[in-house]
Amino acid sequence: MAQLRNVTELLERTQAILGDALLDVERQFDDELASSNPYICDILEHTRRFRGKRLRPLLCLLVAKAVGDIEREHLILAAVVEMIHTATLVHDDVLDEAAVRRHVATVNVRWNNQTSVLYGDFLFTHAFHLAASTGSADACRLIGRATNRVCEGELMQTRNRGNLSLTEEEYFSIIDGKTAELCAVSCEIGARYAGGSDAVVEAMERYGRNLGLAFQIADDVLDLTGLESSIGKTLGTDLEQQKLTLPIIRLLQLCPAEQREQLLLQLEDSSESACREVLRQARELGAVEDSLATARRCASEARQALEILPASPARELLMLLPTMSIDRSC
Amino acid sequence: MAQLRNVTELLERTQAILGDALLDVERQFDDELASSNPYICDILEHTRRFRGKRLRPLLCLLVAKAVGDIEREHLILAAVVEMIHTATLVHDDVLDEAAVRRHVATVNVRWNNQTSVLYGDFLFTHAFHLAASTGSADACRLIGRATNRVCEGELMQTRNRGNLSLTEEEYFSIIDGKTAELCAVSCEIGARYAGGSDAVVEAMERYGRNLGLAFQIADDVLDLTGLESSIGKTLGTDLEQQKLTLPIIRLLQLCPAEQREQLLLQLEDSSESACREVLRQARELGAVEDSLATARRCASEARQALEILPASPARELLMLLPTMSIDRSC
Repeated sequence: MAQLRNVTELLERTQAILGDALLDVERQFDDELASSNPYICDILEHTRRFRGKRLRPLLCLLVAKAVGDIEREHLILAAVVEMIHTATLVHDDVLDEAAVRRHVATVNVRWNNQTSVLYGDFLFTHAFHLAASTGSADACRLIGRATNRVCEGELMQTRNRGNLSLTEEEYFSIIDGKTAELCAVSCEIGARYAGGSDAVVEAMERYGRNLGLAFQIADDVLDLTGLESSIGKTLGTDLEQQKLTLPIIRLLQLCPAEQREQLLLQLEDSSESACREVLRQARELGAVEDSLATARRCASEARQALEILPASPARELLMLLPTMSIDRSC
Repeated sequence: MAQLRNVTELLERTQAILGDALLDVERQFDDELASSNPYICDILEHTRRFRGKRLRPLLCLLVAKAVGDIEREHLILAAVVEMIHTATLVHDDVLDEAAVRRHVATVNVRWNNQTSVLYGDFLFTHAFHLAASTGSADACRLIGRATNRVCEGELMQTRNRGNLSLTEEEYFSIIDGKTAELCAVSCEIGARYAGGSDAVVEAMERYGRNLGLAFQIADDVLDLTGLESSIGKTLGTDLEQQKLTLPIIRLLQLCPAEQREQLLLQLEDSSESACREVLRQARELGAVEDSLATARRCASEARQALEILPASPARELLMLLPTMSIDRSC
């Protein structure tokens, strides 16, 4: 089967498999929030324009379909996961002082930081209330634990800003929390509420986690290599914010001893010219290609995890996601 | 029975009734968080010093004791409510740019805003995970809904900064969310998991809500009338931040038409001298006393709600809390 060319194609093919289930999730998301409070409607209307590819609900529903049937719990919990993801984005934009997300002004810029922090809190807590509406304490536990790990990952990242001796292990621990965890739980929920066996649930969790890792590594490479205009958010911010990512950790490993001191100075400098010089070296010494190779290994592990499932259109589409998450524009 | 003289006396009498239950909650709170992540331990250690009178766990356990017995759910959910309360304090301090809480540097000052936002998120999500450990989706729903209303109240307050025509109804809606809701749910949980009837659960919810309202109105009066050194947080911040509270709303109602324009200018000015002038008028026209009378009516409603319960040392102590929450140093 051919690779996916873009997000539009992914969404079209998802709809062909899932019917209106993804739209149902979106409607649930909107209805839940819109009815709640007039002070929230205008922010909700604004953040609606942030929406991207709804990767997490899509994962949850495709896994459900590949394992069994889509149930009421899937529709609720897919909306819950998307709400939590949106909450983290709103808070991330405050932390990063980001002005633009997907070509739209962030909440902190359109309103202010106060509103952003509280709107994020509102989304988190609304998500938990919605999760409880499944009537399953188990679902609440899964969602609560995963979200807590996301926060741990983010906190660990923030506390390590400027730490130029961050290890690869610590880096993986950070991205495992802040990105992979929510993908993993989306897939776990997909399998569990479709009646998957323990082995299937575990394999789907592993699929989601490795997909998330592959995606985040590729994203970190893109942050280093990309150009501002190519995606709708500010790029090259990791170096500027002294966040060490995999290509930089690899560069520090690959860098000859006599150039290391100079490199550390450039990393601390974080001016535009220093960043360009870091990028040049990362390309030259193979740190970029090396990081992408790691992302591809995660993608391959994700695909292997799917082999436990019988062939189906949903499984076939899930097989294509890991590569798509890497081949953006590195 | 005599009034409570101070928080120490309250805690002593609570311990005499509850034994070590309140300490068990505290241990649960610490153990839960301490074991989780080294990046969190130092912040936890720091925020431990913020601890005040643990009003919400105390409410939950005293109500449980007054209605029936203290069960496992009470100990868990009392820690959950305290964790959520701490999360809102940490985020409040970012929003208010507060430097000191209970004589200790805030997280935003000791570390930075990023850490505060993420630590607050961590506490929120950890609280939900802990709530799910009761195995009761109902408990998760109660906690989720209450916390969501807290956020709505906070969001409504922020969106109304600088709105000098805030109505009394809107003010009550704000404080009902941001303060009363968590007291109400603490008492509701106390009654429900001690096997209280629907009528008892409803009455305890009403007790907690009115206690919370009385407390917040008194707090808002104190913010206007108090002196910085008398409590361990920055005072007089509401006017400075253009938050309209009950004494000011009442002052605007009581102010003669010909002085109104001048008063509005003083409120917009919010310099120290303007604030002093506003306070002088609020005292002179009876807006301060009028607000305190409203707080006392809420306190009285709270006490009435307790009458459904049989006499007991726990009920007796609960009877004293509403007045204590007002008679601080207004």
